[in-house]
Amino acid sequence: MTGETTRSTSDCIAQMARDAREAQREVALLDDAAKSAALREIANVLRASGEAILSANAKDLASGRDGGLAEAMLDRLALDEGRLEGIAGALENVAQLPDPVGEVISRDDRPNGLELSRVRIPIGVIGIIYESRPNVTIDAAALCFKSGNAAILRGGSEAVHSNRALMQAFGEGLEKAGIPRQIVQLVPTQDRAAVGAMLQASGLIDMIVPRGGKSLVERVQRDARVPVLAHLDGICHTYVDRSADPETAKQVAVNAKMRRPGICGAMETLLIDSAYPAAAELCTALADSGCELVGDGRARALDPRIEEANEEDWDTEYLAPKLSIAIVDGLDAALGHIARHSSGHTDAVIATDENVTERFLSEVDSAIVMANASSQFADGGEFGLGAEIGIATGRLHARGPVALEGLTTYKWQVRGSGQTRS
Amino acid sequence: MTGETTRSTSDCIAQMARDAREAQREVALLDDAAKSAALREIANVLRASGEAILSANAKDLASGRDGGLAEAMLDRLALDEGRLEGIAGALENVAQLPDPVGEVISRDDRPNGLELSRVRIPIGVIGIIYESRPNVTIDAAALCFKSGNAAILRGGSEAVHSNRALMQAFGEGLEKAGIPRQIVQLVPTQDRAAVGAMLQASGLIDMIVPRGGKSLVERVQRDARVPVLAHLDGICHTYVDRSADPETAKQVAVNAKMRRPGICGAMETLLIDSAYPAAAELCTALADSGCELVGDGRARALDPRIEEANEEDWDTEYLAPKLSIAIVDGLDAALGHIARHSSGHTDAVIATDENVTERFLSEVDSAIVMANASSQFADGGEFGLGAEIGIATGRLHARGPVALEGLTTYKWQVRGSGQTRS
Repeated sequence: MTGETTRSTSDCIAQMARDAREAQREVALLDDAAKSAALREIANVLRASGEAILSANAKDLASGRDGGLAEAMLDRLALDEGRLEGIAGALENVAQLPDPVGEVISRDDRPNGLELSRVRIPIGVIGIIYESRPNVTIDAAALCFKSGNAAILRGGSEAVHSNRALMQAFGEGLEKAGIPRQIVQLVPTQDRAAVGAMLQASGLIDMIVPRGGKSLVERVQRDARVPVLAHLDGICHTYVDRSADPETAKQVAVNAKMRRPGICGAMETLLIDSAYPAAAELCTALADSGCELVGDGRARALDPRIEEANEEDWDTEYLAPKLSIAIVDGLDAALGHIARHSSGHTDAVIATDENVTERFLSEVDSAIVMANASSQFADGGEFGLGAEIGIATGRLHARGPVALEGLTTYKWQVRGSGQTRS
Repeated sequence: MTGETTRSTSDCIAQMARDAREAQREVALLDDAAKSAALREIANVLRASGEAILSANAKDLASGRDGGLAEAMLDRLALDEGRLEGIAGALENVAQLPDPVGEVISRDDRPNGLELSRVRIPIGVIGIIYESRPNVTIDAAALCFKSGNAAILRGGSEAVHSNRALMQAFGEGLEKAGIPRQIVQLVPTQDRAAVGAMLQASGLIDMIVPRGGKSLVERVQRDARVPVLAHLDGICHTYVDRSADPETAKQVAVNAKMRRPGICGAMETLLIDSAYPAAAELCTALADSGCELVGDGRARALDPRIEEANEEDWDTEYLAPKLSIAIVDGLDAALGHIARHSSGHTDAVIATDENVTERFLSEVDSAIVMANASSQFADGGEFGLGAEIGIATGRLHARGPVALEGLTTYKWQVRGSGQTRS
C-alpha cells in the first residue's frame, strides 16, 4: 500500500464522517413516528428489490466459491427469499421498538429554581466493522438509525455486491421518507486501509462496533483510537454448588453447552463443587449429549470419557461441543477460578442455597451473572431489549447485550429564569 | 530515559494496578456504612497529622520557590490549617453522599420467569493524573473509594512531599477502618514514564481522569489506550435572542463571564441576535464590568471599547476577563456558530420566547445546555451531585459534571429457577 492510497482512504472516511455528522444533526431531531415510518418504507423497498439483491448475492457466492471460501462461510453469505423476508421483518421489528431518544433519565429542581434534567440523545456517528453476513448491513443500520445515530458500515469484501444492493434499497427507502441518505453509508472501497482509517477517526466517529470473529475484534480493540463496544471472548462458566438440584443442574448444563455450542454465551467451563453428590451423573449426561469433555484429575475420576485438560483449556473458548470440567472445593474456590479465567461475559451458578446464589451474583464481576439458568440466555432478544447491536464486556458505557439504549448518551438541560451564580 | 527504566516503570504500574484490583474486589462488596465510617476515620487522621502534612508542604513550597515556580502555582500548592480543614471537611461531605453502588437501575420479569435486574457496580481501577493542587489527592481518592473503586494517583512533581504526607494519612485511616491500603495508591516515582505507563495500561486501569491544564489533558487524550473522562476546552457560548429580557441578559452575561473568568464554565463568546433591541446596553454593561471585548464588525459598532476580533478568537478559551462578541441573524445563525465553534461543554440561551429556548435546548449538542441561566452553574455541586471528579465532554459513559454515579457501571443479574433456552 502506498502512502498516497492511505491518505486518500483516510480523507474518504473523514468526508463520510462529516457528511454523516451533518445528516445526524437532522435525524437527531426526528420523532419516533418519522423514524419508524422510514424503517417500514425501507422494508417495503427491500422486498421490492429482492431480485436485484439476490442477483448481487449470487455474484458474491460465485466469487466466494471460486476463491475457495469454506462451506460455513458461504452459508453465512447466502441470501434467499426466506432470509430476505427475515431481514425485512427485522426492520419492521426495530421500527416498533420503543425509541429511547428524548427520555428524561432524571430530573431535579434546585433550591435556586433551576430545573435540571438529563435527557437521552443519540451518540452521533457509529462505525460498524463486520464480516461475511450481509444481514448485519441492514440490522446495524436500522438500530443506529432508530436511535438517531448515523452509521458508517464496513462490510467484508466477500459480501461486497450483496451489501451494495442492500444499501441501495436502504437509501431508496430513506429518500422516499425524506431523510438524508448520508445517515447510513457503506464504505465504498475494499481497501484494507479503510478499517485503519475508521479506527483512527477520533472526533469524527464516536464509537466503533466490530461484528465478527476474534481476530477482527482483536485488531479493532488493539488499534482503535475511537471507543469500541465489543467482547473478545465468551469464556462462560457454570458453577454447580453442593446445594444444586440434580435435575436442574443436568438440564441447565446440557443446554448451556449443547443448545448452540458456537455462540458467545455457550458454557465453556463447568465447575463442580467437590461436595456435590450427583457429579458423576452430571458428567455422564454431558458426555451422553455428545459433548467432548476434558477435565482435571478429580473430574476424570467421574467418567472414563473425560480426557485430561491442559493449562490452556481453562482459558479457551471452544465454540464447539467441547467442555472443560474442574472440581472445586466450594463457592470460594469457584469464585477464585472465575476471577482468574472468566472473560467477563456470562457466568452462572446452579444452587438452591440462596446465600450461595446471592454471593455469586454479587461477587462475580462479569457483564452478566445468572443463577439457575442457562448461560445461553445471554442475548438482547431474551433480555427483552429487541434486536441487539452486540454484547459488550468492557466496563464503561454499556455492558452485556447492547441494544437501542446502548446507542444513546445524554445531555444536561437546565431551565432557569435569570439565575446568576453568587 | 533508558529502555530499562521505562520497563521497570511500567512493571511498577502494572503491579500497582494488580494490587489495586485485588483490594477493589474486597471494597466493591462493602456497604455504604463501612465506606463512610472509613472516610470519617481518614478525616480524623488527617486532622491529627496536620503538622506532618504542613511541614511536607513547606518542603514543596521551598523547592518551588527555588525552582522559580510562578506565584499562582505556589498558591495552588500551598496548604495551611484552613485548607487542611477544608480537605478534611470535604472527606466528611463525601462520606455522607448517597452511595450509588447496589442501586437497581432497571428490573424486568421475563415471560419465562427469569428475573432480570441491572445493578450499579464500581468501575474498578481508576487512574487520576493531576498537577499541583494537593487537595486533589484526597478529593479524588475519596470519590473513588466511596464509589467502591480503587485509585492510582499520579500527582505533580512539585507537590511530591505534600502528596506523600496526605496519602500517608489516608492509608492510616483506611488501615484503622480495616480496609486494604492498596485501594488508594500514589505512584511512588516522579519518572515521567509513569504517566505513559498508566496511559498504556489497558486492561489493568479501567479509566483515566486527568485533572489539570490543557497540555496535560491533551497529552492524556492523545496517548491513552485506556478510556479517558475529561474535557479539553470550555469554549462556552451565550446566545441573547431578540426576545430576551434586557435586565436578565445583562445580569446573566456579566455573571457568566466575570464571576470567575478562569473556570471552564465561564462564557467565552457572546452571540447577540441582530434584532435584539438592547445590544448596545448589554455590551456597555460588559465593558463597564472590566471585561476586555473583541467583536465582529457589527458588534464593534455598539461600543467603542470593542476591539476587532480575529478568526482565532471564535475558537479561543480565554480563561480571563476577555470576551468575543458576534452579532448573528437569529437563532439559526446562533446554532450554526455554536455547532462550528463550541467545545461541547456548556452553551446557554437568553430568551423569553419558549420556542427559542426549547429549540436551543434540543438542538445544541453540548454536554450541558442552559436557558436563562449563567453558564457558571456548570458544576457538580450546583447540580446537586456533591463533589465532582471532573467535567466530561466526551460522548460515551458520562457527560457534564461527573460525580459518584459517573464512577460506576452496571452488571446484569438474572435469577432463574432452572430455565433452559429452547
